[in-house]
Amino acid sequence: MADENTWLATTRLEALTDGIFAFAMTLLVLSITLPDDPGNLGYMPNAELKELIFHESHRFLNYAIAFFLLASFWMNHSKAFHIMKATEHHHTWINIVFLMFVAIVPFTTALVGDYGNDSVAWTMFGANMFILGSLLYLNLWYAGRNPHLLREGAGTEGIEIGKKRNLVVLAVSTLSVLISFYSPAFSGLAYFLIPLVLLLPPFQHKS
Amino acid sequence: MADENTWLATTRLEALTDGIFAFAMTLLVLSITLPDDPGNLGYMPNAELKELIFHESHRFLNYAIAFFLLASFWMNHSKAFHIMKATEHHHTWINIVFLMFVAIVPFTTALVGDYGNDSVAWTMFGANMFILGSLLYLNLWYAGRNPHLLREGAGTEGIEIGKKRNLVVLAVSTLSVLISFYSPAFSGLAYFLIPLVLLLPPFQHKS
Amino acid sequence: MADENTWLATTRLEALTDGIFAFAMTLLVLSITLPDDPGNLGYMPNAELKELIFHESHRFLNYAIAFFLLASFWMNHSKAFHIMKATEHHHTWINIVFLMFVAIVPFTTALVGDYGNDSVAWTMFGANMFILGSLLYLNLWYAGRNPHLLREGAGTEGIEIGKKRNLVVLAVSTLSVLISFYSPAFSGLAYFLIPLVLLLPPFQHKS
Amino acid sequence: MADENTWLATTRLEALTDGIFAFAMTLLVLSITLPDDPGNLGYMPNAELKELIFHESHRFLNYAIAFFLLASFWMNHSKAFHIMKATEHHHTWINIVFLMFVAIVPFTTALVGDYGNDSVAWTMFGANMFILGSLLYLNLWYAGRNPHLLREGAGTEGIEIGKKRNLVVLAVSTLSVLISFYSPAFSGLAYFLIPLVLLLPPFQHKS
Repeated sequence: MADENTWLATTRLEALTDGIFAFAMTLLVLSITLPDDPGNLGYMPNAELKELIFHESHRFLNYAIAFFLLASFWMNHSKAFHIMKATEHHHTWINIVFLMFVAIVPFTTALVGDYGNDSVAWTMFGANMFILGSLLYLNLWYAGRNPHLLREGAGTEGIEIGKKRNLVVLAVSTLSVLISFYSPAFSGLAYFLIPLVLLLPPFQHKS
Repeated sequence: MADENTWLATTRLEALTDGIFAFAMTLLVLSITLPDDPGNLGYMPNAELKELIFHESHRFLNYAIAFFLLASFWMNHSKAFHIMKATEHHHTWINIVFLMFVAIVPFTTALVGDYGNDSVAWTMFGANMFILGSLLYLNLWYAGRNPHLLREGAGTEGIEIGKKRNLVVLAVSTLSVLISFYSPAFSGLAYFLIPLVLLLPPFQHKS
Repeated sequence: MADENTWLATTRLEALTDGIFAFAMTLLVLSITLPDDPGNLGYMPNAELKELIFHESHRFLNYAIAFFLLASFWMNHSKAFHIMKATEHHHTWINIVFLMFVAIVPFTTALVGDYGNDSVAWTMFGANMFILGSLLYLNLWYAGRNPHLLREGAGTEGIEIGKKRNLVVLAVSTLSVLISFYSPAFSGLAYFLIPLVLLLPPFQHKS
Repeated sequence: MADENTWLATTRLEALTDGIFAFAMTLLVLSITLPDDPGNLGYMPNAELKELIFHESHRFLNYAIAFFLLASFWMNHSKAFHIMKATEHHHTWINIVFLMFVAIVPFTTALVGDYGNDSVAWTMFGANMFILGSLLYLNLWYAGRNPHLLREGAGTEGIEIGKKRNLVVLAVSTLSVLISFYSPAFSGLAYFLIPLVLLLPPFQHKS
């Protein structure tokens, strides 16, 4: 029974997805921490607090990088589901594994905040992003191969562009890991390549 | 007044359910923790960090197990509500007790992460899963007995399969608790039986 | 312009409400904590862990009480919005103040978990519930006085019952505070009166 | 292709927005903390606990201020999207940057809770609110310039009032930062000017 196969309305999967994305994006804020009041005096002079915040400023940068990466994945996912009308068993599980790696981003972001000089930390962060990109690619590939999941009249052009855009994420997260072996401090900056590359014509939707 | 009895639109109960599942699944990430920087030096050599992460690797496994168990309950719940059109007082309360045990999963997952060598920890985790399975079984049983809650034309086959699939969860969580008395380290692995058993024909929806 | 007055679709207020309730209910789990590993050995014998969990068992009870109180408020709120079709400026703000006291429940629950022998803690928890009950009463009262916010054909019987049910919450939370001055350990148990009293005929919807 | 330009249904952006607002508003509760049990006795006399809570009472005030500021931004955002029917690439990104600064509010609120005597803390809180106000202004300005994003028949009066109301937030957060250089303790109180000023006729929707 075809109906049995596609039983899970996309609405509820989209609700769970939006919830997990929204929560993971908000939990990232927990990666911005200041060390405990060093003098343990219960107060702190202005200059010292400024120093403290400045010293942890890389955490704000990591927060922004992780937030934008998650936002990009969310947008790509939204766009993919915009042309889909249904989901089925395998496709739902691809999504759930994807969400498992979304929910772990606050951990890997805190890791690079705490140990940003270690290539191990940036390798884990990069691996997280690589896996997210791969699973979204798989999601799109699966949808492209199962046209009965797509809305009537939805072309595959959107799917193909989405897949290409995901390959950029795979390339950049690999590059970031490679950089981390030489100079971990610049590892995070690699991710700024993503918005730049995606502006190039081959990655743009034709209008 | 029948309408009074079924006043609570399933939409809002589904929204609360999706929200609590999404947050509980994301909060699981808090069970992945690294011990505080032992040397208290503010940095850590790569090799030491790798060691630290490796030493806590069981937490990633527990995270994955708990995430998939919650995802399975969510899918089973989605499927059940797909054939329901309304909820009523008792049925809503069965759901709320169910959600109370969903929201406690991040605690029991952290417990097996911290004290994974103790059968007490795995017994509490297993009890949590056993109760979740029982309450979802009760939910399905109640819906099957109150056909006015079901959509027109919805057969009870979906309900019966769902109930059978829940029994597998009850059996496996019992098994996991039993294993914990002999060798707690293998207790979590028992849960991998669930996806294997559910692939067998008696637990599959006929197509 | 009447339309301007009722600009805020209830859908988005309901989405925010469901989100805050779901999150507050899930955050309650953070009030279940075990003291740090006392021997600092990284492991703990089974008997000691059992002891530890048993010693903190009041936290599970408090979790359940707070979860059910929030669930009751959510159900009452759902029921109220079920007969409303629109919201307006003042009514939205009553809701937002209500949500502010919903979001603080994880704090007051942790407080009675940490300091359950102090009447101060139970007074704050009781005050939180009293304020929630009062604001929901105000919400219902306001809706009853502004019939243009209600759906066509929605009687005020549901509103009147809802108000009466809220008065029970006010009475019981007052009682719980009074008990806390004599014996804080029994303060939480008072809340079990709520479901019992609400079973009495005057608080039941006529069918 | 115009459809490609406006591909992202506002529904999912609204769902993500409601989610992030709901979680950020609820996470504010984590900024209400009591210092650890000083005597480390596991209990505390009533008088001492009262003292402790009283000593941290500024945290409740900060919680309320931050909650109402977020609620105001949410209401303004809801109102703006009420007259919009679609979003497009640039507009979605304005929203996502806005959400990034929504999700960071629990951090800046905890900062003024911990270091409320430092102008540095209040400057960061004020900057957060100033940026939120600016991005919402930009959001409204963009929508006003792209009438194809608006619902048919939606006038721009709502947009213009919304922009004016946001300017009040910019002015008041600037004032709060200025006050913090002279007397940080009064810095938070400045935000109470917002509801007062918004009651004045130029900031009211004509009816």
